Amino acid sequence: MSRRRMIYEGKAKILYEGPEPGTLIQYFKDDATAFNAEKKAVLDGKGVLNNRISEFLMTRLSAVGIPNHFIKRLNMREQLIKKVEIIPLEVIVRNVAAGTMSKRLGIPEGETLPRAIVEFCYKKDELGDPLVSEEHIAAFGWASQQEMDDIVSLALRINDFMSGLFSAVGIRLIDFKLEFGRHFEGEMVRTILADEISPDSCRLWDYETNEKLDKDRFRRDLGGVTEAYAEVARRLGIIKESAQGGDVIDFTSGMK
Amino acid sequence: MSRRRMIYEGKAKILYEGPEPGTLIQYFKDDATAFNAEKKAVLDGKGVLNNRISEFLMTRLSAVGIPNHFIKRLNMREQLIKKVEIIPLEVIVRNVAAGTMSKRLGIPEGETLPRAIVEFCYKKDELGDPLVSEEHIAAFGWASQQEMDDIVSLALRINDFMSGLFSAVGIRLIDFKLEFGRHFEGEMVRTILADEISPDSCRLWDYETNEKLDKDRFRRDLGGVTEAYAEVARRLGIIKESAQGGDVIDFTSGMK
Ligand SMILES: Nc1ncnc2c1ncn2[C@@H]1O[C@H](COP(=O)(O)OP(=O)(O)O)[C@@H](O)[C@H]1O
Ligand SMILES: Nc1ncnc2c1ncn2[C@@H]1O[C@H](COP(=O)(O)OP(=O)(O)O)[C@@H](O)[C@H]1O
Ligand SMILES: [Mg+2]
Ligand SMILES: [Mg+2]
Repeated sequence: MSRRRMIYEGKAKILYEGPEPGTLIQYFKDDATAFNAEKKAVLDGKGVLNNRISEFLMTRLSAVGIPNHFIKRLNMREQLIKKVEIIPLEVIVRNVAAGTMSKRLGIPEGETLPRAIVEFCYKKDELGDPLVSEEHIAAFGWASQQEMDDIVSLALRINDFMSGLFSAVGIRLIDFKLEFGRHFEGEMVRTILADEISPDSCRLWDYETNEKLDKDRFRRDLGGVTEAYAEVARRLGIIKESAQGGDVIDFTSGMK
Repeated sequence: MSRRRMIYEGKAKILYEGPEPGTLIQYFKDDATAFNAEKKAVLDGKGVLNNRISEFLMTRLSAVGIPNHFIKRLNMREQLIKKVEIIPLEVIVRNVAAGTMSKRLGIPEGETLPRAIVEFCYKKDELGDPLVSEEHIAAFGWASQQEMDDIVSLALRINDFMSGLFSAVGIRLIDFKLEFGRHFEGEMVRTILADEISPDSCRLWDYETNEKLDKDRFRRDLGGVTEAYAEVARRLGIIKESAQGGDVIDFTSGMK
């Protein structure tokens, strides 16, 4: 790896300066954290899988007109992205009650919600990413009303597209977390999707068995974490079953 | 088949009175027509495939909160549906220029549109289903402004969901036609999706090869029409490859 400037090291990824102004390199680590980094582990190969899965989803979202930061994958762990000014919100879309929502509102995990619900959390590790309302966001200026409107409508479109995509491969999209940023294009600023979409940031349940194929396997010590991530990649056609029964990561697909 | 009252025979389907008030039975024929029924053929097994594919898509759309007429499949060619008052519009959603749009506006077939475009045609065989604007629809009272708004937002949600779904199985959703109806629920009227969604009403291109997997095979005499429809059903997991290499229609899946 050539020497280059590190911009930020987060819990799951590292950002490096990109080759051109306005670009960054996003490096996917194998580090897993949960409960605001109280629980930690290194999961062999997770970063490689998330890099591929996020590439796949961002590319497909681009093709249906959802603007996002992804430019191209560089290698097994890195992708070139457009640099944005991150809006400090975790945008959560929920179709089925689970996790924090089940706990906070007493809705049994697995109960289908009356409609998709978009939640905002203020992205601040020290505070444990607290839930906030549009009132808070407006009052503290974290995002403008126009940005919130754009975020909600993009988030709902992403939800419909990804629900369809996962449904075709026998997976139910329970909920997921997104981050958006301000992309400066000359005089213009546009709200675009950033960060990653992967089993780290989604709840994905097998349609038939309700088996969890996401980070809850790590949070709840269910084992087989990377195996579940690989299963997601396999169903999406990102990695292929090899003749020997192992997984082969196909480095040609998705490069166009 | 027991004797029962036929309500309407169309170009591709027959409607019979249903077992309960407010229901109908939709029977899928093998008849294929194009260019306003100037071109006709019988395609062995097409009705069976469309019955299954439409069941699959309507069920998945229901699960994400898109209200539609589908109740359950009754047998190979029939499904029980909610009776609606059809809104006399063909609602076309286009992602990529093709067919009539390419011809009318001189956009090369295959050119991705700047964004998804919703078109309305007045459903009237005698007139060849002419394109109309919201002005015409409002002026002639075919649908209210509220209904048009509901239709556009449902159509765009359906587009996102189905684009995702087909994209996961290597198919590009180029465009499709929908019909909506008024469903009377007590005092209330709701706009719901009706008719069918199948390769008869969608343009579906293989992602890699651009091979057409839809009714254009019939319109343009490309051959292999039902084979293409079966390929769509196979990729969606509706029919399974048998050990002998032929197709087996699995009558258990999708029945829950
Ligand atoms: N396109 C982008 N431009 C700038 N920052 C980004 C972009 N995409 C994601 N980020 C930020 O990069 C970091 C990714 O690393 P991660 O390990 O997820 O960090 P964290 O622990 O803060 O969540 C996040 O803080 C995220 O907000
Ligand atoms: N739920 C429903 N209730 C009443 N009519 C319906 C419903 N769904 C579809 N239809 C109508 O039933 C007919 C289906 O048969 P089809 O062969 O497609 O007819 P057409 O030749 O008129 O297009 C269409 O006219 C369609 O508008
Ligand atoms: Mg993060
Ligand atoms: Mg019809």
